[in-house]
Amino acid sequence: MSDPHDRRYVLTLGCRDRPGIIAGISSFIAEFGGSIVEAGYHSDPDTGWFFTRQAIAAATVPFGLAELRDRFAAVAADFGTETDWQVHDSGARRRAVLLVSRDGHCLHDLLGRAGSGELPATVEAVIGNHPDLGEMASAHGVKFHHVPFPKDPAERGPAFEQVRALVDEHDPHAVVLARFMQVLPASLCEHWAGRAINIHHSFLPSFVGARPYHQAFARGVKLIGATCHYVTAELDAGPIIEQDVSRIDHADDVRDMVRQGRDIERVVLARGLRWHLEGRVLVHGRRTVVFS
Amino acid sequence: MSDPHDRRYVLTLGCRDRPGIIAGISSFIAEFGGSIVEAGYHSDPDTGWFFTRQAIAAATVPFGLAELRDRFAAVAADFGTETDWQVHDSGARRRAVLLVSRDGHCLHDLLGRAGSGELPATVEAVIGNHPDLGEMASAHGVKFHHVPFPKDPAERGPAFEQVRALVDEHDPHAVVLARFMQVLPASLCEHWAGRAINIHHSFLPSFVGARPYHQAFARGVKLIGATCHYVTAELDAGPIIEQDVSRIDHADDVRDMVRQGRDIERVVLARGLRWHLEGRVLVHGRRTVVFS
Amino acid sequence: MSDPHDRRYVLTLGCRDRPGIIAGISSFIAEFGGSIVEAGYHSDPDTGWFFTRQAIAAATVPFGLAELRDRFAAVAADFGTETDWQVHDSGARRRAVLLVSRDGHCLHDLLGRAGSGELPATVEAVIGNHPDLGEMASAHGVKFHHVPFPKDPAERGPAFEQVRALVDEHDPHAVVLARFMQVLPASLCEHWAGRAINIHHSFLPSFVGARPYHQAFARGVKLIGATCHYVTAELDAGPIIEQDVSRIDHADDVRDMVRQGRDIERVVLARGLRWHLEGRVLVHGRRTVVFS
Amino acid sequence: MSDPHDRRYVLTLGCRDRPGIIAGISSFIAEFGGSIVEAGYHSDPDTGWFFTRQAIAAATVPFGLAELRDRFAAVAADFGTETDWQVHDSGARRRAVLLVSRDGHCLHDLLGRAGSGELPATVEAVIGNHPDLGEMASAHGVKFHHVPFPKDPAERGPAFEQVRALVDEHDPHAVVLARFMQVLPASLCEHWAGRAINIHHSFLPSFVGARPYHQAFARGVKLIGATCHYVTAELDAGPIIEQDVSRIDHADDVRDMVRQGRDIERVVLARGLRWHLEGRVLVHGRRTVVFS
Repeated sequence: MSDPHDRRYVLTLGCRDRPGIIAGISSFIAEFGGSIVEAGYHSDPDTGWFFTRQAIAAATVPFGLAELRDRFAAVAADFGTETDWQVHDSGARRRAVLLVSRDGHCLHDLLGRAGSGELPATVEAVIGNHPDLGEMASAHGVKFHHVPFPKDPAERGPAFEQVRALVDEHDPHAVVLARFMQVLPASLCEHWAGRAINIHHSFLPSFVGARPYHQAFARGVKLIGATCHYVTAELDAGPIIEQDVSRIDHADDVRDMVRQGRDIERVVLARGLRWHLEGRVLVHGRRTVVFS
Repeated sequence: MSDPHDRRYVLTLGCRDRPGIIAGISSFIAEFGGSIVEAGYHSDPDTGWFFTRQAIAAATVPFGLAELRDRFAAVAADFGTETDWQVHDSGARRRAVLLVSRDGHCLHDLLGRAGSGELPATVEAVIGNHPDLGEMASAHGVKFHHVPFPKDPAERGPAFEQVRALVDEHDPHAVVLARFMQVLPASLCEHWAGRAINIHHSFLPSFVGARPYHQAFARGVKLIGATCHYVTAELDAGPIIEQDVSRIDHADDVRDMVRQGRDIERVVLARGLRWHLEGRVLVHGRRTVVFS
Repeated sequence: MSDPHDRRYVLTLGCRDRPGIIAGISSFIAEFGGSIVEAGYHSDPDTGWFFTRQAIAAATVPFGLAELRDRFAAVAADFGTETDWQVHDSGARRRAVLLVSRDGHCLHDLLGRAGSGELPATVEAVIGNHPDLGEMASAHGVKFHHVPFPKDPAERGPAFEQVRALVDEHDPHAVVLARFMQVLPASLCEHWAGRAINIHHSFLPSFVGARPYHQAFARGVKLIGATCHYVTAELDAGPIIEQDVSRIDHADDVRDMVRQGRDIERVVLARGLRWHLEGRVLVHGRRTVVFS
Repeated sequence: MSDPHDRRYVLTLGCRDRPGIIAGISSFIAEFGGSIVEAGYHSDPDTGWFFTRQAIAAATVPFGLAELRDRFAAVAADFGTETDWQVHDSGARRRAVLLVSRDGHCLHDLLGRAGSGELPATVEAVIGNHPDLGEMASAHGVKFHHVPFPKDPAERGPAFEQVRALVDEHDPHAVVLARFMQVLPASLCEHWAGRAINIHHSFLPSFVGARPYHQAFARGVKLIGATCHYVTAELDAGPIIEQDVSRIDHADDVRDMVRQGRDIERVVLARGLRWHLEGRVLVHGRRTVVFS
């Protein structure tokens, strides 16, 4: 059997459900002797939608990525015009750009994972609206850009344009708001749709917006959380990729929550980002299918 | 040393913080040779409030509960007029009345715990706005009252009055809304303040009100939860005693959430109720101090 | 789309892995227009084994269970002689027999779930080596048998024979050791292989054998756990179906662990048993594949 | 009220339990007007031992640390000759030395926390038995020493002596085996008793020794874990400070466990180390009292 960690072609597909889709795809793969090392399927009775992710050992595919795509297009054509599918090569390293502000815990964590090879992406650049984290990026050998943001939100347009230009230069598979603390304008949400990923420091939909740990303290909750989600124009309302929580008690004040929360934020972001980069996340409306 | 599970006098106190309170209380106890088997303290710098719960082995107290209260009153007088304190005897079994509707999982669980002696209370009566759970209560040897509720919320006053009368007959230490599914009128919230405990089937403050699992499904969250809280006039906004969550994924539909949620609801309610009955929960504003 | 909770035929299969198995099975199902409402696949590179569980909406199968089995036998024949497969009808209620001793929390919980329809099985009988839980079984309308066990383990053969006869009368899909506290003789392990399920009150492989909470206390662990596993001749060493843990601290003594542990035991056993009854658990050597 | 994060004197004490200890300590503090910002107490009925940790706002102590110690010595003298106590100044930064091998995830994480001020210690030096992590230490501005270890365990004495000398130079409050992968000789365990902290990549006491994830995979457990404990001469058997677990399933192979395990190891080590450095951990025999 192939090692599932070896290079593989990853097929993801979403389409209107009907009998025969799994048979169609698996017969197509079996025909050329492809070995499926991971297979996830999901039928959603509420939406009538079907989702799958299949990883085929690259060594068992007797042609290249382009031809695999061409051949599969003919199969997918049978599944209806709304069908959305992709094939990517796990051996082609992916690119990420990170947007940060002053809190460095998520940045430091992602740079560490990138350095050890755990994150399936190279960090192409780090962009900060403050200069504070420049040294951290540099120490990890990553280029840092400081783009100052005016105090007045109404005047931030040019700064966002500069960020956009710096990001787009790398055509990244992921634009990560690693505690960026700035609300993206709708045009950028649209532009990076499906690629911009945020970590919000609450268990959404609780405590949307600013200072969620202060809100959590005031409400007296017994667990705090973090949420990794795709960025959409509506604040903190995009499709959720991953969430987790941590127990607190009455002795924990806001500073304790902030400290404890960092441990959840780091892990939730890293997990969500990895799944995104490995093509494990399929979005449908406001919900995600995650073949973790 | 005394066995902490043996009979003890439990002192709980909340007052404005200042140096010397711990010394005052512990010197008072040491003076008569009392053995403290559990001691919890909390100073809240945000509110400037101090909270404590102390359990004294009853066998080491050379006088009765009434005298202990009398003597302690003199100590507490020094802590300011806002001081709120109580002493209760863990050996005096407490009383609970349960309000239910048609979902029996919390009722069945609490009756089981009461029967095995795990719940530190006797269930005096079960009151249902539907007759469905009468048989379950009877099988556990507990009296069941069916109080039908009119469809029109505006006409439910007399039904609530009947519930109130049935409950008050037992002067219970806890009025438990074990998936009661009815919003208590403000007058009853007020009347049972600090004694009425609800289990809400979401991780509050997310998904207040009706059909929280449907809301959770629509939002696409990755964890569902349950919250045990004191009932106040504002819906699902009372001080939280306990919460917990359970992981779900895209394959779980609302029915799966309902089933999985029952396991969290049962445990969260049982835990919160036990802490309440053992005097482990001190309320201050919208927050609770829980000396679990 | 079909409701996944509706009646379905559940196919489970394990065989030596090779390309084309998924295609073979899904083409077979597609041919008669079957709608797959749940599909789980797993290729294990370590053993070279393939596992699948597929639930087909019964309403989309144009013939009966017997014919479905006959037809599928021809498909499975292609997958090698070691292939192990089953098809069961989710609409055919399954049977469970529970073995208990004196601790009633798991029994009470399972009887509650059976009564509400949550457990996909009827509890045919409860057998206790002590009479204590007879009343609980009766109150839930279930027949109880008391089989006294001699003190001397060497003399327990006849008692086990009696238990075996009482169990086998019902030809149950699950023989549940719901805190039975007796070690089954190897012959019974063999006789009920794949059907006897135990709940052990520790996070195995830690704390095998007697008094695991005492062992946990002595070792000073910070989490306690419970394990649901198939019973095999080696004590507490059978394939694990499900485990969970709960946090404790230094203030929790053995009695606190026992109380807190009950909440984990109940849920872990109920979860593991449901998965077993729904054909979600495939055993391979000492490991299980659980399509939860 | 004082901010609990401000500078404080932290008193920890363990002694044979008897009535009056809390009163004795709190009266002593009240006498000079000290404000207790955190107080933890624990009476262990099994051992008859009493433990406390109290944090006094330094601003409310009208004399210095030395005098506080002198004065308290007189109080402690009343609690018996076995009494063990310490007072430390939270404002005096503590020192840690880290021992590593080739896996850098714990090192990277601790260096990040030290850099952001979250870890209440400076990392004085990193010592590796391989040179691999030298660059990582240097990038964080920390001195790295490479001490090569001979293949033959019998010949490692001089290498350990060199490590000992390099560590002792800094007289550290914590010697952290951050995935050091070498078994300390008994003499070093003894020499650093109460200061040497290890992270073991299993939920102890399961899977002691080498390759715990391989052991976990072979046993088919459903949760993996990590354990932070004091190092003693018996391998992986020292008093446990902290543990945590993470859910896995049949689709996770050893490499997945290793990756997922890193996230638990990092957090469990960081948490345990912080508690140790803040004087929150009191050891008694093989168990710890952790006033977290």
